[in-house]
Amino acid sequence: MSDTLQGNSNVSVALLHHPVYDKNRQVVSTAVTNLDIHDIARSARTFGLFRYYVSTPVHGQQQLAERIVRHWQEGWGATYNPKRKAALELIQIVSTLDEVLADLHGRFGRPAKLVTTGAHLHPRSVTFGHLRELMADRDQPFLLLFGTGWGLVEEVFERADLVLEPIRGVGNYNHLSVRSAAAIIMDRLFGAR
Amino acid sequence: MSDTLQGNSNVSVALLHHPVYDKNRQVVSTAVTNLDIHDIARSARTFGLFRYYVSTPVHGQQQLAERIVRHWQEGWGATYNPKRKAALELIQIVSTLDEVLADLHGRFGRPAKLVTTGAHLHPRSVTFGHLRELMADRDQPFLLLFGTGWGLVEEVFERADLVLEPIRGVGNYNHLSVRSAAAIIMDRLFGAR
Repeated sequence: MSDTLQGNSNVSVALLHHPVYDKNRQVVSTAVTNLDIHDIARSARTFGLFRYYVSTPVHGQQQLAERIVRHWQEGWGATYNPKRKAALELIQIVSTLDEVLADLHGRFGRPAKLVTTGAHLHPRSVTFGHLRELMADRDQPFLLLFGTGWGLVEEVFERADLVLEPIRGVGNYNHLSVRSAAAIIMDRLFGAR
Repeated sequence: MSDTLQGNSNVSVALLHHPVYDKNRQVVSTAVTNLDIHDIARSARTFGLFRYYVSTPVHGQQQLAERIVRHWQEGWGATYNPKRKAALELIQIVSTLDEVLADLHGRFGRPAKLVTTGAHLHPRSVTFGHLRELMADRDQPFLLLFGTGWGLVEEVFERADLVLEPIRGVGNYNHLSVRSAAAIIMDRLFGAR
């Protein structure tokens, strides 16, 4: 993992499977999906991030995620596709957002700034440009948080140190997949142009 | 589909399942995957593109793709999630790149400029900035072409009018998923900032 320590090694991402909304704004736990694990890991690796936390409180879902990661780390997959191994090395499977923040606090010796993402403008939204400037302080750890389902619950936004502005396209359609949104956000914050 | 005709209605995307390379640089046909259909359709819809062509010469794979699209267009899915319907309306399933180009020629009354994408720098690579300027000519149709598997074959690059530069991250890891790469490329070309 050594060469990920260059780059944006003060920034991590997390994908939260609970608490998130479903389409009726009920608070649920969503299922872990294979491509959420792979795609976001590959993006995080491309943009030099520190870690990719996959967070679910459901024990069976944690086991599923572990099995997927292990397949590409140790199993036949590691030989078949070493590039996939390099991406999945960034993954750490956890139960809660608190566990992510505690882990980062322990590793960096100071609390990470929690940055939430979502499809809607929020009273506290900061721009991509502003967040990029803040993240240039390499001594300050940051956590970019993504929600599955219909997005992070309001209580999580309230806990955030920073709320990132939504990605705007053309018109009012704002239904990117979390995989696509995570890729675009990392590119806007860290991509070389 | 009316409000997609604003925006970037001179630009379409296509995902090619053949001819592409596998990991050993053999020319293969890859399988259609559910999330390639959904994620790229949602990104194309977000950025106001004209059409999303899913190209595979394999009849059974075309049928699978049709079934996925129809589920969200007409079936239970259309009621369950109308936003997904709006994205999948952009999809047209075809057999070959020639069929895509012929369809665009017929619709626009002039040939589309073929723009290939890939993970490596090419002798003919143009920058995102340059392509964005060219695409501002709304009378000129463009086709952004993405490959599955290990990417578009060299013969397809040779046919291209323009070769888009690769997305560069931090370091030399360049293994984004095609879903993530397509999202980032559309955002760089069309995203509001």
